[in-house]
Amino acid sequence: MSKSPIYTPNPTLDLVLEREIDVPHELVWTAWTTPEHLVQWFCPRPWGVAECEIDLRPGGVFRTDMRSPEGQIFPNIGCFLEVVPQRKMVWTDALLPGYRPAPNPFMTAMLLLEPLSPERTRYTAIAIHKDPETRQKHIEMGFEHGWGTVLDQLVEHIKTKM
Amino acid sequence: MSKSPIYTPNPTLDLVLEREIDVPHELVWTAWTTPEHLVQWFCPRPWGVAECEIDLRPGGVFRTDMRSPEGQIFPNIGCFLEVVPQRKMVWTDALLPGYRPAPNPFMTAMLLLEPLSPERTRYTAIAIHKDPETRQKHIEMGFEHGWGTVLDQLVEHIKTKM
Repeated sequence: MSKSPIYTPNPTLDLVLEREIDVPHELVWTAWTTPEHLVQWFCPRPWGVAECEIDLRPGGVFRTDMRSPEGQIFPNIGCFLEVVPQRKMVWTDALLPGYRPAPNPFMTAMLLLEPLSPERTRYTAIAIHKDPETRQKHIEMGFEHGWGTVLDQLVEHIKTKM
Repeated sequence: MSKSPIYTPNPTLDLVLEREIDVPHELVWTAWTTPEHLVQWFCPRPWGVAECEIDLRPGGVFRTDMRSPEGQIFPNIGCFLEVVPQRKMVWTDALLPGYRPAPNPFMTAMLLLEPLSPERTRYTAIAIHKDPETRQKHIEMGFEHGWGTVLDQLVEHIKTKM
């Protein structure tokens, strides 16, 4: 059987944030996959995480409901598709837990961690959309600034609290 | 970590075909996962399969384009989500190959094979929908008769050609 990569990058449909960060990849993985850690860095402040559930296996729930500064809740629920501990996770909001098709699909996302040294990590986060319009909407929602700010918060969280 | 089943049956959202059939589960698996076999039984005749692609791994393509008796082609493409050889496969048209969200999601499907003896198999096929309206539409499209006819064709194919 062909073992070519499952995902093919498509610059007209996807958005990518890639950065080298000076924290160990094991801690990045733990910060992403543990609700007690995730709620502390996952939303660009003053937004916050209202509710987080993580069942880290294909089909398992990944819930990260967001809370606006005014207190409004924005549900954000999907499921994991692939989990390679400390290296890769793929999830989508196109499927609810148990793989049930979701009412309002927006994207599939992929997190890739590559250890560069015991203290440095190449961090790649990819947002995979169905069409150029959805990608453009994500740009206008502030993909680059938002995901970048969140990564700053993640690094700070690891350095100060883990 | 909890190892409860990922999928929770929901009678108001899902449709199920369950039957005991007198063919070995290994041959059912082969007939489902090999394009040369699948094209011979997968559509209720006089419909046929115009094109079949199978990359049997999570995120891999599962294409079964259909051809009407008048020759019209109906594309049918999605990807696999879970593959347990000879026992279980899960796929969806809510995601294209590589997990990209699809333009027109309809369902996730699950095939379960349970060997009852070397020559008998409990065959369970489940269609998982996002809402009761989609389930109702699937009933009106002829789920029960269609999936039942296809199962008859599958058993006949195994008995006469494998």
